[in-house]
Amino acid sequence: MLKWLNEKLLLLNPTSTKVSEGGYTRLGFSKEEQLAIEVFTQVAKELELVIEKDAIGNVTATLPGVRNHLLPIAFGSHLDTVVNGGAYDGVTGVLAGLGVIKQLKKINYQPLHPIKIICFISEESARFGISTIGSKAMTGMLNVDRVKKLLDQDKVTLESAWQKLDIQLSEIKQMDWKQNSFHSFVELHTEQGPLLQQSGKKIGIVKAISSPLRFKIKLTGEASHSGTTPMGKRKDALAAAAHLITYIESKGDNYSKSDHFVATVSTITNSPNSMNVIPETVELGVDIRSINETLLDSAREDLYEYCKTLSESSHVKVELSKLSMEKPIPMDAEVVESLKLASKVAGMSFMEMISGAGHDAMNMAQRWPSSMIFIPCNGTSHHPKEYTETSNILNGVQVLLHYIRLVDRKAEK
Amino acid sequence: MLKWLNEKLLLLNPTSTKVSEGGYTRLGFSKEEQLAIEVFTQVAKELELVIEKDAIGNVTATLPGVRNHLLPIAFGSHLDTVVNGGAYDGVTGVLAGLGVIKQLKKINYQPLHPIKIICFISEESARFGISTIGSKAMTGMLNVDRVKKLLDQDKVTLESAWQKLDIQLSEIKQMDWKQNSFHSFVELHTEQGPLLQQSGKKIGIVKAISSPLRFKIKLTGEASHSGTTPMGKRKDALAAAAHLITYIESKGDNYSKSDHFVATVSTITNSPNSMNVIPETVELGVDIRSINETLLDSAREDLYEYCKTLSESSHVKVELSKLSMEKPIPMDAEVVESLKLASKVAGMSFMEMISGAGHDAMNMAQRWPSSMIFIPCNGTSHHPKEYTETSNILNGVQVLLHYIRLVDRKAEK
Repeated sequence: MLKWLNEKLLLLNPTSTKVSEGGYTRLGFSKEEQLAIEVFTQVAKELELVIEKDAIGNVTATLPGVRNHLLPIAFGSHLDTVVNGGAYDGVTGVLAGLGVIKQLKKINYQPLHPIKIICFISEESARFGISTIGSKAMTGMLNVDRVKKLLDQDKVTLESAWQKLDIQLSEIKQMDWKQNSFHSFVELHTEQGPLLQQSGKKIGIVKAISSPLRFKIKLTGEASHSGTTPMGKRKDALAAAAHLITYIESKGDNYSKSDHFVATVSTITNSPNSMNVIPETVELGVDIRSINETLLDSAREDLYEYCKTLSESSHVKVELSKLSMEKPIPMDAEVVESLKLASKVAGMSFMEMISGAGHDAMNMAQRWPSSMIFIPCNGTSHHPKEYTETSNILNGVQVLLHYIRLVDRKAEK
Repeated sequence: MLKWLNEKLLLLNPTSTKVSEGGYTRLGFSKEEQLAIEVFTQVAKELELVIEKDAIGNVTATLPGVRNHLLPIAFGSHLDTVVNGGAYDGVTGVLAGLGVIKQLKKINYQPLHPIKIICFISEESARFGISTIGSKAMTGMLNVDRVKKLLDQDKVTLESAWQKLDIQLSEIKQMDWKQNSFHSFVELHTEQGPLLQQSGKKIGIVKAISSPLRFKIKLTGEASHSGTTPMGKRKDALAAAAHLITYIESKGDNYSKSDHFVATVSTITNSPNSMNVIPETVELGVDIRSINETLLDSAREDLYEYCKTLSESSHVKVELSKLSMEKPIPMDAEVVESLKLASKVAGMSFMEMISGAGHDAMNMAQRWPSSMIFIPCNGTSHHPKEYTETSNILNGVQVLLHYIRLVDRKAEK
C-alpha cells in the first residue's frame, strides 16, 4: 500500500508542473492544474470509480454503496499549488481519498454508503487572491459577478481563465448546491505547522478553522528625485509602509501570546520602484488569522487606528480596504467524535487541533457535517521543502477507513 | 526667444513618448529616447549645426568658431527620462544649449571658440540600474564587458538593447576619449530640489556633485504558510526588511542634520509575494548621497553593522552588496568663477550649490574643466509634476551666452 501511495503521489505531481526553483507551480485554473486533475481522473478510473465534473471544474469520483439510497460519505482536497509550492499541500488529501478506495477494494469491504472523492478546483488564493473557489461554487457561496473580474499577475481575468478552459460563466451561475447531498465531508491535510510533529501524535482532529481577515493597504506619497529631495521634504510611501509592516508584525506577536493568532504582511508592490526615485505608491497585502473573534475584532480596530495615525505623521495617504472577513468555522461535533473513535479503533494517537489555514472543508462545513484530519509534516508549507512521510498518509487512510466502518455501522442499526 | 524655447520644449518631448499616467517615458536606448534625439538633430540642422554621432549614440551638434583651432566650449545634457518622468529633467540642458546657438545667431555674435551641444544617451539609471552610460562612454569610463549583461525589467540585456539600435559592441570598445577635446563643459539643469526657488536666486552654480553610494540588500528568510506558522517560528524576510528600511530612513534623517545627506530605499521586490505565504526573499535598492566623505564612510559602516545585527536577531540572512561607491566630484574652480562672472554680467542673482543628483557633468569633469548651472524649479523631479518656467531656461541661456563671451575674451588676450 505504501508503494501504491508513493507511486500515485509522484503521478499527482506531474513532472511538467515542476519549476526550476525546485517546487511545483500549478495555479488555479491553469493547464498545470488541469494536468494533475487529469491524473486524478485516470487513477480514479483504474479504481473503477464513476467520474463526474461540475460546471466550475470540481471532479468527483464515486464508489457506489451497497445501499445507494444512503447519502455518500465524501473525502477530498485540491491539486493546485502556490507558485513554487510543495508536493503535499492538497495532494495528500486527494491521494488519501483514492487510497481509501484502494484499501476498501484490497480488504474487500463494500461500504453501505457510497464514497465520493472530491478534487476541488483552485483552492489556493495564489493566482486571483481568492481561495477555495471550487468549494465555494459547490456550496453556492461564490459571488460569480464579483469575482469574475479579478486579475492574476499577468492581468488575466478569472473570467477569461475560465473561458480558456471552456468553463462557461452561465453554467457556473446555474450551479445549485442542493443538487449535492453528503452524509459528511472529511478533508485530510498536512498540518502545515510544526505542532503535531512536535507532539508525537499521529493524527490531528480539527475542531475549528480560523478564517483569514485580509486587507489591502495602499500608501500614496509623492515620487521625487532621491538625490535632490531633502530628508525633511519627502513623502516616501515605502518608508511609511515599513512602519506599518513592523507594527503588524509586533501586534501579531503580542496577540499570539494570549491565543492562536498570526498576522502577516505577505505581499508588497512599489511604484515606480526605480533606484533614483522616492517611492510614490506602495500596496501591502495583510493576512490575519485567529479562531478568537474578540482578538480579530480588536486587531482590526488597532489596524484602522494605526493607519489613521500613520497617515497624519508621515504625510503619506494610507487607504485600507478589507478583502475578506469571515468568522471562524466550527467543525461538526458528531463528525469530530466519530473521527476520534475511528483513530482509537485504528490504533492511532491523536489530538484535537485548530486549523490556522483555510481549507475547502470550511465551505463544505456550511452545508454538510464536516471536519478535517491533519497528519504530521515538517512544519513547512507553500514551499518546495514541505514534506510528510508516506506512512503518515497511510495512517490517515486507516482512520478514514475506520470512519467509513463506523458510519456504516450506525446505518445498520 | 521665449516662444522659440516653448516650441522646441514641446518638440523635444514627443507626444508619442507621453504615457497614460501623465508623464513621459523615454528609457535609455529605447525607441522613445531615439525619437527625442531625432528631434534634437532636426532642430540642430535648422540652426545649421554640424551633426555627429559617436559609437554609443551620443549626438553632438557643432557651431564652427571664428578660430577653429581653439578648443570647443561644450554644453548639453540628456533626453531620456525615468518611467513616467517629467518634461524638464535633461531636456532643459539640451534645449538651453540649442537656445544659446539660436541667440548667438540672433545677436549675430560669431564666437571665437567652436560651440558644441551634446545630447548624451541614457543618463538615467531607470532602465539598467546604471546611470550616465553615454558620458561614461565618451570619457572612457564605461566598463563595457561588465555592463553589457545588465538586465532591464523585461530581462533584456543592455547588449541586446544596443543591437536593436544597431549600436556595435566592438565599436563602443574602440571609443577613445582622447579623440574629443573640450575647452570646458557646462551642463544646465533644473535643480530638482526646492532650495533655489526658496532662495529667490535665479541661478545656482554647482561647485560639487555628490555621487551616489548604492547598495543592493538581499534578505533571505523562509517561505511558509501564513496561517499555520506560529509567530515565533517565522523567518519573515519582509518583516526584517521593514526594520532595515526604517533604520536607513532614520539614519538619513540624523546625518542630514549635520550636512547635505540623503538616504533612500527606493526599490523593493518580494518573493513569492503571495497572500498566504510568508515572504521568503526580499531585495532592496538603497541610494545614499552626500558630498561629505566622512558622513558617507560612516553611513556605510553603520549599514554593514546593522545588517549583521539584523541577521542575528531576525534569523533572516542579510547580504549586502555595493553597486556603486564613487567619491564626490568637485567642479572646476575656474569654470565656476567664470560662471559667477557671467551671471553677474547677465544681471542674474546666483548662489553656489551642491548637486545631490548625479549628472553627465560628473563624468565630463574627470577629463575636462566642467561645471553646471541650476535653474529654479518646483522642487519636484522624476515625476510628471516637475516644472520650471521657460523664463528660467532663458535666464540660463543668457548666462551661458555670457560665459562664451568671457571665454572668447580670454582667447583674444
